[in-house]
Amino acid sequence: MTAAPLALTMGDPAGVGGEIALKAWIKGRGNSSVPAFFIIDDLNRLRSLASNISLDVPLTEVHSPANVIDIFASALPVLHRPLSKESRPGVPDSDNAEAIIAAIETAVSLTLSGEAGAVVTNPINKKVLYDAGFKFPGHTEFLASLAGIGTPPVMMLACPELRVVPVTVHVSLSDAIKTLTTEDIVDIANITARSLEQDFGIAKPRLAIAGLNPHAGEGGGMGDEEQTIVAPAVEALQGLGIDAIGPCPPDTLFHSAARADYDAAICMYHDQALIPIKTLDFENAVNVTLGLPFVRTSPDHGTAFDIAGSGQASEASLLAALIMAADMSYGRRA
Amino acid sequence: MTAAPLALTMGDPAGVGGEIALKAWIKGRGNSSVPAFFIIDDLNRLRSLASNISLDVPLTEVHSPANVIDIFASALPVLHRPLSKESRPGVPDSDNAEAIIAAIETAVSLTLSGEAGAVVTNPINKKVLYDAGFKFPGHTEFLASLAGIGTPPVMMLACPELRVVPVTVHVSLSDAIKTLTTEDIVDIANITARSLEQDFGIAKPRLAIAGLNPHAGEGGGMGDEEQTIVAPAVEALQGLGIDAIGPCPPDTLFHSAARADYDAAICMYHDQALIPIKTLDFENAVNVTLGLPFVRTSPDHGTAFDIAGSGQASEASLLAALIMAADMSYGRRA
Repeated sequence: MTAAPLALTMGDPAGVGGEIALKAWIKGRGNSSVPAFFIIDDLNRLRSLASNISLDVPLTEVHSPANVIDIFASALPVLHRPLSKESRPGVPDSDNAEAIIAAIETAVSLTLSGEAGAVVTNPINKKVLYDAGFKFPGHTEFLASLAGIGTPPVMMLACPELRVVPVTVHVSLSDAIKTLTTEDIVDIANITARSLEQDFGIAKPRLAIAGLNPHAGEGGGMGDEEQTIVAPAVEALQGLGIDAIGPCPPDTLFHSAARADYDAAICMYHDQALIPIKTLDFENAVNVTLGLPFVRTSPDHGTAFDIAGSGQASEASLLAALIMAADMSYGRRA
Repeated sequence: MTAAPLALTMGDPAGVGGEIALKAWIKGRGNSSVPAFFIIDDLNRLRSLASNISLDVPLTEVHSPANVIDIFASALPVLHRPLSKESRPGVPDSDNAEAIIAAIETAVSLTLSGEAGAVVTNPINKKVLYDAGFKFPGHTEFLASLAGIGTPPVMMLACPELRVVPVTVHVSLSDAIKTLTTEDIVDIANITARSLEQDFGIAKPRLAIAGLNPHAGEGGGMGDEEQTIVAPAVEALQGLGIDAIGPCPPDTLFHSAARADYDAAICMYHDQALIPIKTLDFENAVNVTLGLPFVRTSPDHGTAFDIAGSGQASEASLLAALIMAADMSYGRRA
């Protein structure tokens, strides 16, 4: 699928990242739809983890991505990045923040150089990194900085049935309304349209721009943001030659017949985007970062400290993230 | 299923109500899971409509619900309520507001007297009624007034997979946040719990109370309404002996595993409730009014003036509304 193997980061070693990586390798070896990948992680902690949760996963240390594809059929390739301190499942420790960050930096660097095909990130815990002096609001902003781009990247959630892109993300609902702007809708929809072409191979992407209010405001009777903010964005996008419709009533935008009319829905707030996709496909939704000079995906869940180390974590979303990253990487190279 | 036949109102005669009633009779006759019903409507306009859209539906005028069940197998029983003016599909006319309102009044009166088992309402257009001097914000408030109850009734949307109850409904998203109160959440959840017992036969209803903000505010980092408004409501409900959990992160509340943990989700705003249910089941969602002294359901769609008279309207939601009304009516009588 992809010429270069994918770089998977360790994420927080107290979370489920290692476990789902081991399980993804078991599912992926010998399955041609799953791309070869290597994990940037502590070889010894992965070995203990596999033993503790009784996963029979041979691990082979690699020093570059060069021979990952050959190794992958018989072992999970590990680019060894030692932890400062032994990690215990469910017990995050900011002493390991440096290794967590270094794994991300290495993945980006190898992807920018073309040695890796894409960056796939395991979940991190922001507080652990903040306590160690990390200055970025989150994973995505850090990736943008490593890539040397000034504009904030855009988060897409994607599953086979639906792609959604929230314009406002991790702010209160009240602040989402206050900070929503025509300019942001246009910028984000524009980045989305370009990514749908470049990464997803859609020649003429169709975007549905959701309204903010019930029934998209019903002509101003239930809020005027559709008229003052959203409709001008739809017009501006159409002026740019983008196939955009809206403002669309949010509640009727996500059933199967409606979904057939667009390639991505641009949503005004976090839950307008995340409720429908997590309702439709809780296990397989993938978080995709648009607007970076490399492909980056991640599983759509957190560190799950509560179940880490117990062997219960599902690798489904990570597998979907790996497959989508490979498809997108292939799209960019085509 | 129910001892008494169901009373179906005409709704706006320029809308799809007549058409879906005719189609529901075709699907329902001879199908034991569909209850017998009669429609309160203009006999002549229904006859013309059936002819125009080539539906072979014999119509029989009845003067009371008494012999509806016998007639239903061979004809759609019509309690004749003449329109003031001939109705044209897609062209609403406030000259017919009186007949539209009278059909609702008759349905309620026959249900309160026990002659009908439940009220099932076809969609109306509020503007048509306002232009004729109708003083109620909507269908539901009018029904509450006819029933002589002071408290506003509660809207539930229900389909086989999910029941949702929005606490704030037809207001802008901004006003939904501003007007959300602990008291309203408690009152509405309480009415919901009682209806789940009385109408849906659930001995110990389990309610999930959604948060307002992304991730339910994540401990106050993304909005504090969970702490100031929602959590106190959950505690108050638990104090009343109701099995309530929350505030629940909204985006992870509606996938199938999550839905197994509750009988109804109490939602903070319109689209938090309507996005998941319409995403899951666009055709079969039913609007149920809780807190009335009689059972009332309606299809979860509007008058659809744009397709009225064309024969394209789907009777699926009306059929689901009829079946649910019969089940609920049976529950109350049991």
